[in-house]
Amino acid sequence: MKINVLGCISRRFFASSVIPKRAPFAVLSDKDIAFFEGTVGKGNVRTQDLEDYNVDWMKWYKGHSKCVVSPSNSEEVSAVLKHCHDRQLAIVPQSGNTGMVGGSIPVYDEVILSLKRLNKHYEFNSITGILQCDAGLILEELDERLRKEGFMMPLDLGAKGSCLIGGNISTCAGGIRLLRYGNLHGNVLGLRVVLPDSHGSIVDFGSQLQKDNTGLHMHHMFIGSEGQLGVITRASILCPPAPTSVISAMIGVSSFSGCCSILRDARRFLGEILSSFEVMDAATMQCLEENEQLHNVLTSAPQFCLLIETSGSDAEHDEAKVQRFLEYVMENEMATDGVLAANKQESAFMWKLRETAPLAITKDGYVYKFDVSLPLDHFYELTDAVRERCGDKVCRVVTYGHMGDGNSHLNITTKEPSEEVEKLLYPFVFDWVVAHGGSISAEHGVGQMKRDYISVGKSERIGELTRALKPIFDPRGILSPYKMVV
Amino acid sequence: MKINVLGCISRRFFASSVIPKRAPFAVLSDKDIAFFEGTVGKGNVRTQDLEDYNVDWMKWYKGHSKCVVSPSNSEEVSAVLKHCHDRQLAIVPQSGNTGMVGGSIPVYDEVILSLKRLNKHYEFNSITGILQCDAGLILEELDERLRKEGFMMPLDLGAKGSCLIGGNISTCAGGIRLLRYGNLHGNVLGLRVVLPDSHGSIVDFGSQLQKDNTGLHMHHMFIGSEGQLGVITRASILCPPAPTSVISAMIGVSSFSGCCSILRDARRFLGEILSSFEVMDAATMQCLEENEQLHNVLTSAPQFCLLIETSGSDAEHDEAKVQRFLEYVMENEMATDGVLAANKQESAFMWKLRETAPLAITKDGYVYKFDVSLPLDHFYELTDAVRERCGDKVCRVVTYGHMGDGNSHLNITTKEPSEEVEKLLYPFVFDWVVAHGGSISAEHGVGQMKRDYISVGKSERIGELTRALKPIFDPRGILSPYKMVV
Repeated sequence: MKINVLGCISRRFFASSVIPKRAPFAVLSDKDIAFFEGTVGKGNVRTQDLEDYNVDWMKWYKGHSKCVVSPSNSEEVSAVLKHCHDRQLAIVPQSGNTGMVGGSIPVYDEVILSLKRLNKHYEFNSITGILQCDAGLILEELDERLRKEGFMMPLDLGAKGSCLIGGNISTCAGGIRLLRYGNLHGNVLGLRVVLPDSHGSIVDFGSQLQKDNTGLHMHHMFIGSEGQLGVITRASILCPPAPTSVISAMIGVSSFSGCCSILRDARRFLGEILSSFEVMDAATMQCLEENEQLHNVLTSAPQFCLLIETSGSDAEHDEAKVQRFLEYVMENEMATDGVLAANKQESAFMWKLRETAPLAITKDGYVYKFDVSLPLDHFYELTDAVRERCGDKVCRVVTYGHMGDGNSHLNITTKEPSEEVEKLLYPFVFDWVVAHGGSISAEHGVGQMKRDYISVGKSERIGELTRALKPIFDPRGILSPYKMVV
Repeated sequence: MKINVLGCISRRFFASSVIPKRAPFAVLSDKDIAFFEGTVGKGNVRTQDLEDYNVDWMKWYKGHSKCVVSPSNSEEVSAVLKHCHDRQLAIVPQSGNTGMVGGSIPVYDEVILSLKRLNKHYEFNSITGILQCDAGLILEELDERLRKEGFMMPLDLGAKGSCLIGGNISTCAGGIRLLRYGNLHGNVLGLRVVLPDSHGSIVDFGSQLQKDNTGLHMHHMFIGSEGQLGVITRASILCPPAPTSVISAMIGVSSFSGCCSILRDARRFLGEILSSFEVMDAATMQCLEENEQLHNVLTSAPQFCLLIETSGSDAEHDEAKVQRFLEYVMENEMATDGVLAANKQESAFMWKLRETAPLAITKDGYVYKFDVSLPLDHFYELTDAVRERCGDKVCRVVTYGHMGDGNSHLNITTKEPSEEVEKLLYPFVFDWVVAHGGSISAEHGVGQMKRDYISVGKSERIGELTRALKPIFDPRGILSPYKMVV
């Protein structure tokens, strides 16, 4: 994949107005570094070789921080934030640095607050299913620990091997099983947050209880706020029992309206065990074939491939439900063909197709990526509209995504970055999405990438309220300036 | 049940400091009434026979409002709130008036904003399961409409026949199936809210999409805020498919730790179909027997009765799972006895026992009611502690509740209201709950009843933040003054 090493993609997309000028924050001094070293230990303040922290993993954004501070507990985070508040030093919390929108990358010389060392506390109650853990623990490791006790994390996503739970919560990450286990607002019960105020206040919002109706439910303000209001250092999360039976199937469909009918029937037939409903269009499958030599398991070369998964507690029951569903679909000629995974290997291969798609498209050269929500009526119309608009100026227009959640990942590939294509896509796609009742960010967040578009389709009053809320938590506006809140 | 007609129960509990003095709000004038009549229509402004609005259904609280205004759409709510803002008139939103803590009852002469006429809009997408509806629709009626399309509301509670969905959301109501379908933060996707500001701003927070990660997720601030920040007029709600198979069973258990073991195994054996896990102690069953002549279906006279329900999409599968679970419980001598409901009538009778409990206790004379969350380790210790403390000064100490959610409904009955018992219970119970990691309000909210205790066990910073947040939405503090936010 071509790397946009020159800097921020959004700077290129939206001309010079996008990134505000550097605000009059203080400039990092030797005294600041000495303070940080005294607080978190000399070995945990980094001032050289910061590339891994200044650049996001997609290598789309590049910041210019001179210092990465890595505290190991809430008290150290508090001391650092209080210092930054008092000194008026800008600071950006960074979790696993797996984000897609530059949300955890500095824009100028903000201090980077790395949360990787906040990874000690883990406490799980196997009767209630409530986990309390530090924000710096890796999603996959949490999931593995819970599985040993018959439970699982309520979210799963591609970056699970390196993303941290605190970052997941800050982004309100979605993933491939949201359809079944719900969003993080439903599953996060409480948060310990450190505020960038004059005390570096450490505050427990919410609780470790499934129900707590006392006072404003303020912890939800930090879920999806992308580190704008405070730094999450610990979380209480409700975890579901892990399934003992997982079944995957792929179905070929000739039209998107046919996919919608199948979704309706999947809910009806599979009910409580339906855990994923993913779509890949023919262009995605062709790209997997050409760029990765991965062959579709379906032989009908359908317009759409649906990857459907169930998760349940009884293999025999689940198989019967899936069988009945597939028979219904085939008998009613709703599908061109279908394959039920006979074993874990076949299931893993189906998921490999889906999970390799984001990688496969990068091999065309350059990718313009979108993560949008759309009402199903318009879900695939966008792809058609973009195809028509871009014509032969692009290599491919492919769409895959979490159809069961209305979440489309639209991707447009070119051989090289192209200003012409950028101008065709931006702001066209965002405007189209908003005009059709969608959201310009389904699960990736706003970060640097969509900063200028955050208010599209929203009432001006929401902007006013946002600007009024920010200083209540962050009185000097030092936390992740230049992003999201506008 | 004895009625505390003299006024507010909390005023009695917590002495004179509890209810703040009437703030210097304006006094309702004929011009105000004329304005309201011009806005919502003469027939929808009530100035006489206000008892049904000034007194809560438990008859614990009595307000002194002179005027009930009943708008029928967001625009009318906006005009009313703008007028109240400009005139500095205090106003209390009132939904179905089924609350348990006096949250929707005026304290002095606040205008009552009745939301019952906001009941027109209903729009449901049977593929996505997303409902958009007006806030004044009755929960049970919404559920009935959805069932016709194979879906259901994600919450269910005793007051469903008269509570309104807007009030449910404002209270973050829980109910008997939260264990399965999750809380309202997980299910409410967006809200239309009217703010009591100089514009009477009508703002759409969140969206009608399952995923929307643009900006602060502000609609969550209104869920559980008990009408402190704005008036919910419309909601988007994710609704699950309705089950086609519902099975109920009752199990007798000799110890509370035994109940915990059964909860753990119920999650394991029943997995995705477990929908309720309710507890009633022996004192509850005795009260049902004595006061309502309702006999326990269990013959072992156990210390605890568990009412367990499953909801699934295949009766045969569900029966097999329940059978296997019950066999495990009986074979391992975890239960004194158990009964599986053979049909709907038997199931209905089990639920009748559970749902009659709140009524049965009132027949002792007077009831001190608590709605608390507790970690399961301490769930029933509280009942024992209260029994020991109150001794023979009370008729009974009974506990029932949503054990699967850690939600205990502790009730203490006396023949007459007793100052001595009050002093034994308050603040003892609240202090005990907080000291043991619990919450003084699990699902009923704070309202007038627990106003003075809202900050117990919480950091002072939360109070400061709450007081800073309130005026951002309600600049003149006219909305539900005297409650919750302190």
